[in-house]
Amino acid sequence: MAIFEAILELADDHLVLGHRISEWCGHAPMLEEDLAMPNMALDLIGTSRTLYDHAGKLEGKGQSEDDLAYLRGEREYRNCLLVERPNEDFAHTMLRSLYFAAFMRPYWLKTLEMTNDETVRGVAGKAEKEMAYHIRHAGEWVIRLGDGTEESAARMRDAVAALHIYTDELFESSPAAAEAERAGVLPVRADLRAAWDEVIGQVFAEAFLEAPEVPYPQTGGRKGLHGEGLGHLLAEMQSVYRAHPGATW
Amino acid sequence: MAIFEAILELADDHLVLGHRISEWCGHAPMLEEDLAMPNMALDLIGTSRTLYDHAGKLEGKGQSEDDLAYLRGEREYRNCLLVERPNEDFAHTMLRSLYFAAFMRPYWLKTLEMTNDETVRGVAGKAEKEMAYHIRHAGEWVIRLGDGTEESAARMRDAVAALHIYTDELFESSPAAAEAERAGVLPVRADLRAAWDEVIGQVFAEAFLEAPEVPYPQTGGRKGLHGEGLGHLLAEMQSVYRAHPGATW
Repeated sequence: MAIFEAILELADDHLVLGHRISEWCGHAPMLEEDLAMPNMALDLIGTSRTLYDHAGKLEGKGQSEDDLAYLRGEREYRNCLLVERPNEDFAHTMLRSLYFAAFMRPYWLKTLEMTNDETVRGVAGKAEKEMAYHIRHAGEWVIRLGDGTEESAARMRDAVAALHIYTDELFESSPAAAEAERAGVLPVRADLRAAWDEVIGQVFAEAFLEAPEVPYPQTGGRKGLHGEGLGHLLAEMQSVYRAHPGATW
Repeated sequence: MAIFEAILELADDHLVLGHRISEWCGHAPMLEEDLAMPNMALDLIGTSRTLYDHAGKLEGKGQSEDDLAYLRGEREYRNCLLVERPNEDFAHTMLRSLYFAAFMRPYWLKTLEMTNDETVRGVAGKAEKEMAYHIRHAGEWVIRLGDGTEESAARMRDAVAALHIYTDELFESSPAAAEAERAGVLPVRADLRAAWDEVIGQVFAEAFLEAPEVPYPQTGGRKGLHGEGLGHLLAEMQSVYRAHPGATW
């Protein structure tokens, strides 16, 4: 079941971040972003859907994508803490997407080179392109705000101070992920540090931002130890399904 | 300014309906719909964006798409009442989309035949295909629910009772729209009744639904006379832009 769990971790990362971004729906600060942000959310939720479906088949107990997405509680979610961090403001939202996409893009590229799982390969081929777009879009905003007004630059620095402590967890493999790595299904997370550092370093240089030292990285998401915000997100997301499973009334 | 106003009516219809649908973001009753509904919202908001931009240029007073979307109050909005009706449940939401798309698809097809405005023609070419998809998607749900369980059929009938009274307004041309029709920019709204009746009649036959008599059609949206819900929708939608115009802080 390790591979099932490792795929579930990936699916949870994408679903939770997709839902966080979709909380902006109808509240975007401009019409252009009212289109761009739902598109980013759709990319992420679309990827999660394929991964949940695949995980359910690997498990072989008849759990559908909807069962996995809507019927697990907070302690059963295995997403990293970064993706569940609250939107706060546009600076936080864009930085969180940049951090995540700067990890996922090289992750999927590496997956394309090495995976022996054809479904995962299919996801990687599509998602790699999407993550390249997320890096570009979020990165442009981080630069525009970091190199913007005094106010916008201060907000960008606040976002870095709040979120950078969650980035180390991206590079840590849970026991399940480590087994999927040894089995040749998924790439080794720790190996992606250099690629991530390069993207973040370039954006930060243009945005006049500095990556802080992180003496105490925040982790625990892979063990189901989440911040209080995730419970609210899941309650919102799961309420309609739990009331009317499959919308069949 | 009549043509400016007529284009604005169309843009408002699309933006308001797009935002209503996007209120489902993160609350869809299944993962599949968590992808389909934001896509429908994006189609509508995308169309509104092009129409606002065009309207602003026709007016020639330097109003951007964001100014038109975010800085007008409820009484200045010119959408028909149907699109602002609340989501209520999945039955209402899908029926509202079916009613709207069954009008807009023949509207855009007719526009392609007759308009002398190249920007409007461009919108029509793209939006016609999107509306065909909305008819298919929403129509399938109306049939699935209408021909479903006792509970789902009752909810579908409730939705018809609540929303059918708002459909006559689709076929009414405001003075501004009538001038745009005479000028060869937009098609005559009243001419689209037969096409709409045909689509709705087919879906209702399969869904075991009946279109009620409507002795007192509800209208007034084109004059800025809206239900109380629109004010809330606009307040939510406009809050971030008004606090931070252009997200520039």
